[in-house]
Amino acid sequence: MNHSYESAARQAWQWLETAAGFSETRHPNLEGVTRRCATPEHRATLEALGGWMRELGMAVRLDNGANLIGRHASATPGARTLLLGSHQDTVPNGGKYDGILGVILPLALVKTLKDNAIELPFHIDVVAFSDEEGTRFSSTLLGSKVLAGTFDDAMLEATDDAGVTLREALEAFGCRPEQIAEDRYAPEEVLAFLEVHIEQGPQLELEDLPVGVVSAITGIERHRLTIRGQAGHAGTVPMHVRQDALVGAAEVIRLVDALCRETDDLVGVVGKIENAPNGVNVIPQATTLSIELRSPRDEIRRQARETLLERIDSVLTASRLGLDHALTYEQSAVQCSDWLSEELQGAVRDSGLPPRVLFSGAGHDGLAMRSLCDIGMLFLRCEGGVSHHPGEAIKPEDLTAAVEVLVHVCQRLAQRHDAA
Amino acid sequence: MNHSYESAARQAWQWLETAAGFSETRHPNLEGVTRRCATPEHRATLEALGGWMRELGMAVRLDNGANLIGRHASATPGARTLLLGSHQDTVPNGGKYDGILGVILPLALVKTLKDNAIELPFHIDVVAFSDEEGTRFSSTLLGSKVLAGTFDDAMLEATDDAGVTLREALEAFGCRPEQIAEDRYAPEEVLAFLEVHIEQGPQLELEDLPVGVVSAITGIERHRLTIRGQAGHAGTVPMHVRQDALVGAAEVIRLVDALCRETDDLVGVVGKIENAPNGVNVIPQATTLSIELRSPRDEIRRQARETLLERIDSVLTASRLGLDHALTYEQSAVQCSDWLSEELQGAVRDSGLPPRVLFSGAGHDGLAMRSLCDIGMLFLRCEGGVSHHPGEAIKPEDLTAAVEVLVHVCQRLAQRHDAA
Repeated sequence: MNHSYESAARQAWQWLETAAGFSETRHPNLEGVTRRCATPEHRATLEALGGWMRELGMAVRLDNGANLIGRHASATPGARTLLLGSHQDTVPNGGKYDGILGVILPLALVKTLKDNAIELPFHIDVVAFSDEEGTRFSSTLLGSKVLAGTFDDAMLEATDDAGVTLREALEAFGCRPEQIAEDRYAPEEVLAFLEVHIEQGPQLELEDLPVGVVSAITGIERHRLTIRGQAGHAGTVPMHVRQDALVGAAEVIRLVDALCRETDDLVGVVGKIENAPNGVNVIPQATTLSIELRSPRDEIRRQARETLLERIDSVLTASRLGLDHALTYEQSAVQCSDWLSEELQGAVRDSGLPPRVLFSGAGHDGLAMRSLCDIGMLFLRCEGGVSHHPGEAIKPEDLTAAVEVLVHVCQRLAQRHDAA
Repeated sequence: MNHSYESAARQAWQWLETAAGFSETRHPNLEGVTRRCATPEHRATLEALGGWMRELGMAVRLDNGANLIGRHASATPGARTLLLGSHQDTVPNGGKYDGILGVILPLALVKTLKDNAIELPFHIDVVAFSDEEGTRFSSTLLGSKVLAGTFDDAMLEATDDAGVTLREALEAFGCRPEQIAEDRYAPEEVLAFLEVHIEQGPQLELEDLPVGVVSAITGIERHRLTIRGQAGHAGTVPMHVRQDALVGAAEVIRLVDALCRETDDLVGVVGKIENAPNGVNVIPQATTLSIELRSPRDEIRRQARETLLERIDSVLTASRLGLDHALTYEQSAVQCSDWLSEELQGAVRDSGLPPRVLFSGAGHDGLAMRSLCDIGMLFLRCEGGVSHHPGEAIKPEDLTAAVEVLVHVCQRLAQRHDAA
């Protein structure tokens, strides 16, 4: 079988290189890949994917949300469906792997199953979601919401920078957006949803591991804080009477960083700061900053928020600084299904690798798919943890490992299925 | 005499109110005073000042740098000249006192001397400097440089926002800029330069004192620092491998604030900060900030710089952050003359007040006048330490105290003069 995994991985590598060429950029290796929903690049990608699917004997269809779905059918009567997929779109000047890797690796899986005449008691549907990044219509998770049946028709009126609505773009792409509701899968026909994605972080690389099993997709909250002080002449106001908003902001930045460093399964950042009046010789009057906290466990994140706001309040009060605070965004964490995570860990062990479990600090299509079915995710090591950047890179041998894990997980699910 | 001080102070108050009306703004009490060099507002101010000077029997002239000078002559043969003055110009939407107070209080002094028939063995020249703030031509200390003989003719080609050169503006104002060099005072004819100014800080108010004696005009240095980290996805990079430039900047802000709080005669601020890429969900890659340090003693400021840069280097190195650093501006402190400061303190005591000595954290015309002669400064309490703002405010009774101090200092200088 090893030869077969390698052969499928080599094929996957070639497909990935070909797909990287379907980009608004002229030199994908330099400028990265830019591929937005319902564009000529999207069409070219689906034509190529559809061709490869047909070569593998799969039945191919485009749904009304511009998702491409290829079925590797099971001969078993009444078979349910294992969904495997990820998104075909990218951020502007993104990389060659974020998204499309999770479409192409399942095709390499199908190739291996076929080459080795492995029969499964369930269908495999490989999905190229039309839009997850939301770059064109500010519409994250568009494709997966269509499959999960949670797509909101109001979204069809969203426009791109040229004023084209999503409805118009889908129609021009050959879809019938008014029939999107019919494209949802029935929960009872779905076995699970499984996504492969580059890690977008450095943990697997740091531990020299090709793959990792995802425990959960992070919850996220964002805050906007304005620290209010008192402007003044930076030469004439004595230090002890100053109310310097930026000094207060510096304390907040340190508190966020310190709390996240001391708390397991919590990351956070002050990514954005605006200072006023922002003059070299004026004591800052007001400083506005963002705080983002992420955790795979909502209770950790909410406890951290409480601790952080208490500490901030205490520090600012002591400095005679005012505070305006707003929670601007909150999204709960989504847990990957325990049983699927265990089967993925088993499949990693079956492949002779240690089963590293980690959480996803970024959002994924599983956020939407979780409302349809159980979900699982497999991360692939990426160089330097870099993503959303032309520098995204993976190792060919990690593709081999991932193909092997996917084959093993299918075999494990087949055994469960038989037992059920 | 007390009645006479009060009467002169009341007159000064009225003159100040009248002068506040010569402004580009329509409602000086709401929008503050805007009065730039060589404008119709400048002309109106000089016409009023000239009128008041003539009523006091003074000889009035306009020099070629648009300074108005009124002489209260001494009958003593070979008398030297005590220069008293400040600037007539303001920052945009400035206050009613920053500058013009130091022109009008000396007129109140002359009125008191005259009303009480006090003869002095030196002339008093009251100067309304044309331009200290430099708002119109980015030309700070223009007027005082003309008197001190340090005016650089190249400055005549500086332009305002409408493209008018300083040379053209001065010519239109009735000056002959090519003869500016002839307007310098000869050092041997000058006794000293004395300036009264609002404090622009809260120290006198905090200590409930109407006036204070200035020991020195602060030295200033400014730095630009860029802290270089590594951008990354704020959800996927573990805390312990982050190189967050803004976290490094927060440390720098705290170090500046802490060092200035622990060091006597040192103030400092990080007034300006720019962060990149400045996104809510991106680890900051590069943060640029300004550091300003001020001290009346250059050795304190330079030692502080050394300590600070060592601490910053140590903290950033430990955080694996890079640093680009540039010293962008440095101006040495200027000491007020000890003998004049002592006479001012004596005059404050003569007025029944405790002689508080403080340094000026802001720049003043004395910076230029110091190259001509000995200088001294008297600060007047201002409400909340506010300056460069429509909210500038003083107490009428503090004008009375200031007039009394000026009379006493003249009497003390007269005694020295006699003794010399």
